[in-house]
Amino acid sequence: MTANSGIQVSVLGLGAMGTALAEALVKAGHETTVWNRTPGKADGIVARGATEAATAGDAVRAAPLVIACLLDHASVHEVLDPLTADLAGRTLVNVTTTSPAQSRELAAWAAAAGVAYLDGGIMAVPQMIGQPGSSILYSGSAEVFQQYKSLLDLWGVSTYFGEDAGLASLYDLALLAGMYVMFAGFMHGAAMVAPAGVTARQFAGTAAPWLSAMTGMLDQYATVIDGGDYTVEGQQSLEFSSLDDILAASSEQGISTDVVAAVQGLIQRQIDAGHGKEGFARIIESLR
Amino acid sequence: MTANSGIQVSVLGLGAMGTALAEALVKAGHETTVWNRTPGKADGIVARGATEAATAGDAVRAAPLVIACLLDHASVHEVLDPLTADLAGRTLVNVTTTSPAQSRELAAWAAAAGVAYLDGGIMAVPQMIGQPGSSILYSGSAEVFQQYKSLLDLWGVSTYFGEDAGLASLYDLALLAGMYVMFAGFMHGAAMVAPAGVTARQFAGTAAPWLSAMTGMLDQYATVIDGGDYTVEGQQSLEFSSLDDILAASSEQGISTDVVAAVQGLIQRQIDAGHGKEGFARIIESLR
Ligand SMILES: NC(=O)c1ccc[n+]([C@@H]2O[C@H](COP(=O)([O-])OP(=O)(O)OC[C@H]3O[C@@H](n4cnc5c(N)ncnc54)[C@H](OP(=O)(O)O)[C@@H]3O)[C@@H](O)[C@H]2O)c1
Ligand SMILES: NC(=O)c1ccc[n+]([C@@H]2O[C@H](COP(=O)([O-])OP(=O)(O)OC[C@H]3O[C@@H](n4cnc5c(N)ncnc54)[C@H](OP(=O)(O)O)[C@@H]3O)[C@@H](O)[C@H]2O)c1
Repeated sequence: MTANSGIQVSVLGLGAMGTALAEALVKAGHETTVWNRTPGKADGIVARGATEAATAGDAVRAAPLVIACLLDHASVHEVLDPLTADLAGRTLVNVTTTSPAQSRELAAWAAAAGVAYLDGGIMAVPQMIGQPGSSILYSGSAEVFQQYKSLLDLWGVSTYFGEDAGLASLYDLALLAGMYVMFAGFMHGAAMVAPAGVTARQFAGTAAPWLSAMTGMLDQYATVIDGGDYTVEGQQSLEFSSLDDILAASSEQGISTDVVAAVQGLIQRQIDAGHGKEGFARIIESLR
Repeated sequence: MTANSGIQVSVLGLGAMGTALAEALVKAGHETTVWNRTPGKADGIVARGATEAATAGDAVRAAPLVIACLLDHASVHEVLDPLTADLAGRTLVNVTTTSPAQSRELAAWAAAAGVAYLDGGIMAVPQMIGQPGSSILYSGSAEVFQQYKSLLDLWGVSTYFGEDAGLASLYDLALLAGMYVMFAGFMHGAAMVAPAGVTARQFAGTAAPWLSAMTGMLDQYATVIDGGDYTVEGQQSLEFSSLDDILAASSEQGISTDVVAAVQGLIQRQIDAGHGKEGFARIIESLR
């Protein structure tokens, strides 16, 4: 028995993600109560050992630890605002996707209601919960994180970023920004080679290992950024990083240059400001 | 002795990259002649066993296999146009970065001059030549690629894409597009978390493995793209992939949204065209 087994826990929201989280809790032997606004979603998990609560209030009162996995910030308030008295003295771990400002607002709301609050951002799809590669980012109450860490670890690697409840959301969104932009970069490349008869899968076969290898550069860029001196020797310069060739070839292939042109814009702004001989990492200065 | 050892080969251009290529040839025991426009660059490699040619013509005449690693398309013509008679009957492997159209033009020029032509795109920095992770893309003459493959493999993994001499350049630029866009995505994320006191290195520590893991999605997207049916079950929809939260949080953090807004534009164009319930991979249709 680990320190966190046999815990009474309630899960609010049985969408794709809430169900995956609750399944992992049941499987690990925790006394799991579940609730979903629309009935009928709990049948599978009840068959595996969870208890279904008739109302969100019943679910909250059933356990000292309440997990919220609802649609968005508004739905969390809609479900929990009428239950502040019931929640007082309990712990709320909210893994619903919210903005940093919304997470901070919920933390303040929880503090006022006497609720210990931990905010989470799930970096995984439901099928990945409890599997390698699943990562969940937390911020807010350090005590809650410490107390329930081994339970939270059932879902994936748990990382705690600090007391600012907005930090996990911010990190989450920053990682998603990187991901979506990378996906768009892949799509741009796939669109470039497609007119030459290259399938997207053929391109992915080369592009996926290539992009993965190139993430190896990020720590070097980060070191330069943190050092604040973009003139350090041995870096590829902004001038050398012109995307003109890529833009010209993209136009030749008849594809839209929107995304690449936006990146070129970041580079060009630094060159125009007289920093063309400095390292590529300086493009971050075009963003802030 | 491998099939390709002891080959007579000439390298035109001793910039950072040409020097690295020539070093690898010398080290493997090939009879290497080198030439550089500005004198004085050959001293190191001559000390290790290469022969310096006084003129580009001397270098071309010294070997059946000529490697060009010059600055750009114009410099290749500047050096080789006066030497078409000398080049006739020889093989030219041009690894100078050129656009697909420029590569095709050079292939036609070579064909007219009776020169066997292979075009290469180097996916490595000079320090990586001959090391793991170095990849060189080729297209043009299949015979040349077959004949010299084990020599070319000295520089990195050699991949051949087809007879169209422009294909390697196109692939090269498509992979670079993906890389630069990914770097910009990382920079955006790092800029988002910076105001909360997160260093770029801290962010890279989470972002590099995350982005690397997310390249695992590319093959799935590619399969959907090649299938041409974006309504296949089990995909994340375009509507669900809205970047509004990321854009709002970026604005809250006071950073530029240029790159993310361009990606959002690709998504929005598909939603506006009535495809919001279809899979995210459909954003490629906004590019073509
Ligand atoms: N799925 C993923 O890949 C993924 C990944 C990372 C994070 N997340 C986050 O996890 C959260 C849940 O995602 P999901 O995939 O489970 O979504 P989902 O399948 O669409 O489920 C949404 C859940 O929220 C409930 N809900 C919505 N509005 C409500 C309201 N006003 N009052 C009460 N309940 C309400 C729904 O109940 P009904 O059944 O009654 O509609 C349902 O249980 C979201 O914030 C999402 O961003 C998901
Ligand atoms: N370095 C990299 O990381 C990298 C990566 C992938 C691909 N490449 C490609 O490899 C090629 C060479 O790059 P590099 O890094 O070696 O560049 P570099 O260090 O700047 O060297 C450029 C070379 O081109 C020669 N050159 C330029 N204009 C010429 C002209 N008009 N006539 C004759 N020679 C001329 C230079 O000779 P002088 O000494 O006389 O100026 C020098 O040998 C480029 O096409 C580059 O895009 C480089």
